[in-house]
Amino acid sequence: MRHLLSTKDLSRDAAINLLDVAEDMADVATREVKKLPTLRGKTVVNLFFEDSTRTRISFEAAAKRLSADVINFSAKGSSVSKGESLKDTAQTLAEIGADGVVIRHPASGAPAVLASSGWIDAGIINAGDGTHEHPTQALLDAFTIRRRLHGSASRGKSLDGVTVAIVGDILHSRVARSNLWLLNTLGAEVTFVSPPTLVPADVSGWPAKFGFDLDAAIDAQPEVVMMLRIQAERMSAAFFPSSREYSRAWGLTDARFARLSPASIVMHPGPMNRGLEISSAAADSARSTVREQVANGVSVRMATLYLLLSGDRENA
Amino acid sequence: MRHLLSTKDLSRDAAINLLDVAEDMADVATREVKKLPTLRGKTVVNLFFEDSTRTRISFEAAAKRLSADVINFSAKGSSVSKGESLKDTAQTLAEIGADGVVIRHPASGAPAVLASSGWIDAGIINAGDGTHEHPTQALLDAFTIRRRLHGSASRGKSLDGVTVAIVGDILHSRVARSNLWLLNTLGAEVTFVSPPTLVPADVSGWPAKFGFDLDAAIDAQPEVVMMLRIQAERMSAAFFPSSREYSRAWGLTDARFARLSPASIVMHPGPMNRGLEISSAAADSARSTVREQVANGVSVRMATLYLLLSGDRENA
Amino acid sequence: MRHLLSTKDLSRDAAINLLDVAEDMADVATREVKKLPTLRGKTVVNLFFEDSTRTRISFEAAAKRLSADVINFSAKGSSVSKGESLKDTAQTLAEIGADGVVIRHPASGAPAVLASSGWIDAGIINAGDGTHEHPTQALLDAFTIRRRLHGSASRGKSLDGVTVAIVGDILHSRVARSNLWLLNTLGAEVTFVSPPTLVPADVSGWPAKFGFDLDAAIDAQPEVVMMLRIQAERMSAAFFPSSREYSRAWGLTDARFARLSPASIVMHPGPMNRGLEISSAAADSARSTVREQVANGVSVRMATLYLLLSGDRENA
Repeated sequence: MRHLLSTKDLSRDAAINLLDVAEDMADVATREVKKLPTLRGKTVVNLFFEDSTRTRISFEAAAKRLSADVINFSAKGSSVSKGESLKDTAQTLAEIGADGVVIRHPASGAPAVLASSGWIDAGIINAGDGTHEHPTQALLDAFTIRRRLHGSASRGKSLDGVTVAIVGDILHSRVARSNLWLLNTLGAEVTFVSPPTLVPADVSGWPAKFGFDLDAAIDAQPEVVMMLRIQAERMSAAFFPSSREYSRAWGLTDARFARLSPASIVMHPGPMNRGLEISSAAADSARSTVREQVANGVSVRMATLYLLLSGDRENA
Repeated sequence: MRHLLSTKDLSRDAAINLLDVAEDMADVATREVKKLPTLRGKTVVNLFFEDSTRTRISFEAAAKRLSADVINFSAKGSSVSKGESLKDTAQTLAEIGADGVVIRHPASGAPAVLASSGWIDAGIINAGDGTHEHPTQALLDAFTIRRRLHGSASRGKSLDGVTVAIVGDILHSRVARSNLWLLNTLGAEVTFVSPPTLVPADVSGWPAKFGFDLDAAIDAQPEVVMMLRIQAERMSAAFFPSSREYSRAWGLTDARFARLSPASIVMHPGPMNRGLEISSAAADSARSTVREQVANGVSVRMATLYLLLSGDRENA
Repeated sequence: MRHLLSTKDLSRDAAINLLDVAEDMADVATREVKKLPTLRGKTVVNLFFEDSTRTRISFEAAAKRLSADVINFSAKGSSVSKGESLKDTAQTLAEIGADGVVIRHPASGAPAVLASSGWIDAGIINAGDGTHEHPTQALLDAFTIRRRLHGSASRGKSLDGVTVAIVGDILHSRVARSNLWLLNTLGAEVTFVSPPTLVPADVSGWPAKFGFDLDAAIDAQPEVVMMLRIQAERMSAAFFPSSREYSRAWGLTDARFARLSPASIVMHPGPMNRGLEISSAAADSARSTVREQVANGVSVRMATLYLLLSGDRENA
């Protein structure tokens, strides 16, 4: 593996292998000293063109647990914001000695440009680009589902036949897209549920069902219900009447949560708008994986950094 | 010790023990390699909801000297400022693997909520909450007084009978409150001196004397005079006429400093407003402990992190 | 070496020695584990009163490659911006345990004040002060020229007789000044080329030739052409008509670049304004050293930190 740019390009074997390595990494967190020497002397740069403290600290914790040096580069207030080209920024990081670059960028495709440009030889990890993808989020979601279903017997397993409902703003969500491709690759069956105004214009070729009725989706008893974060800035726009309307029609309310099977899993990538897209009872229940998702995020990011930067799996 | 939330709850034995451990930590700073492996593999998160570079870098230096990994989390511009609840932030840090959380928050009591909530298992250190407490500041102040009085024979000593005048804005000062409780626990006698408008409304039960006349307080020859920082934003408010008036009535001017006993100690938590609450002659004199307070701050914070996170004093 | 404040004060021997140590440091980057234990237990503070992500991450990478602990201190939003004196900031860093302070400051001379004040015992490195100096930039430029001319036989070599044209805004450029002094000390011959409005008022005593005609300077076939960054804020001022005019008269356009000897070197400190002071063809050609300059910057900064902080060259 050279880069992690999208889940769309990830083969089934590569995806399962990454999840298996993440299982090894999760074991590290149970040790007395939660640290591996694997990436000592390697430098990971967190290149963030948008603020995202949660994602940044997850990667930072992952890299440090592998003994890498971490340099945080917020593009705000830097020469980047003064008009430096992505090319010159990339070449600078290459020459500084970056072995891995974790990039968050508002433009879809920016990480792929970095990876294919030849400007920099480092491993590139897409930490969210525009409305395109957020592959480590999808990988940690898949890891979480697999662990819930298979526990300590997860290694090597796929998600064949698992039913997943993804609910909310599909139009603007890179999380929805990355999950769709990865879940499909791993054999799961995805249904999107959203307001009609928040479905992308062209979804031909998307391996998913689409619906507008959350109650019907709930009654179908999917094994996994994944609620997406609704951005406040969509609220006053033309997408739907109000947050109260949104919650009533597309929120996982207490009433809807009560109708879900006790065996179902409730997921959310965070940060949650409690009372809007998800009720506190749902978020805090035993069926919720919200906390596990965060912990698994560190394991999945450790696995990604390891596979991209160590060059030698045998040392693990 | 599980958390350090306040000095009010700190027993005399616990306080003296912490100061004694800080003496050990101060010795580390005299070594060729100023670093202990004690907290290797531990993660300390600096969770700052208010800017405070001085306090943040003191904790960061302390944690790194103990070989912990440090992640800085400024809540500005993060999802926290977009309305994420403290609960969700805390759970995120728990799952990221934080062993210790150093929290600075504008709301009094926020660190205690974190510690008692069950949201996170990490050791919580209050680095200043509203007008409530700033316990490591009081501990470093007590450490500084003890060292000035007892030198290398400080270990095990209390501050029985030491007289301390704390001067300035008592109303808004968490430093004043943390010092009051700790100094009282350690046996010192505290006198507050302030403008009448800057005394809290209800000080019944506070083990201190109150006065409005700094000259009288100086003439009483306290062993320690601690000047508080005056916030510029209080100036144009109803608290007192002007900074010139403030300085004349409640500042440690050259004239007042000259009347103090040569054996007295002059303290300030920093950053100082030179010429306002303290004159440069006083701040830079041999009787001033301003610089020692900063150095001792690192030792006290190392001791705190050690006691909260190592779980095993014997390894020191 | 105690501090690195300017290149003007650097002797020929000290400069050549630093460049030689930087050669050793460049070798580290070729190793499997790109890290030396040399500065373990040392603390380097990046004290930046102006934003400069490129310079900050170069020093951060250099310090971490030497196993130092790094604390980033952006003065924005700190007590410094609330009026704390440089003296109090310096004393705070001293007591925190800073062994080295990398300072970027808008006021010319601020690093020298820090070094001569007695406020702090740490090694002080000037990372750019006002229009005064930026010595590590000049050192990495000299290192880059020397390597281009002498390759692996660079150690011990000077730049005797090398001709260098430095083009652009001399008036405001600390890079131009630091290069002038160092290049002169190393035996090179400097010609400045700039708009008449961007020459300093008093250049008596500057060991350089001055010209306003870039075409004439190009026709003289200097071995090195160093283009300075033009600041956008100079554009609408009285300095020259427009960026189009600037580029036509003082930019390294494709046409001018084509007239340069194939043996010449094209330099730029970055970040570049492509199409303004330098064309992309020139910036990306084999004769351009822009990328090497960034990589060499890390080596030169490692050498500087090593010479200032290790106190013992033999351990290298």
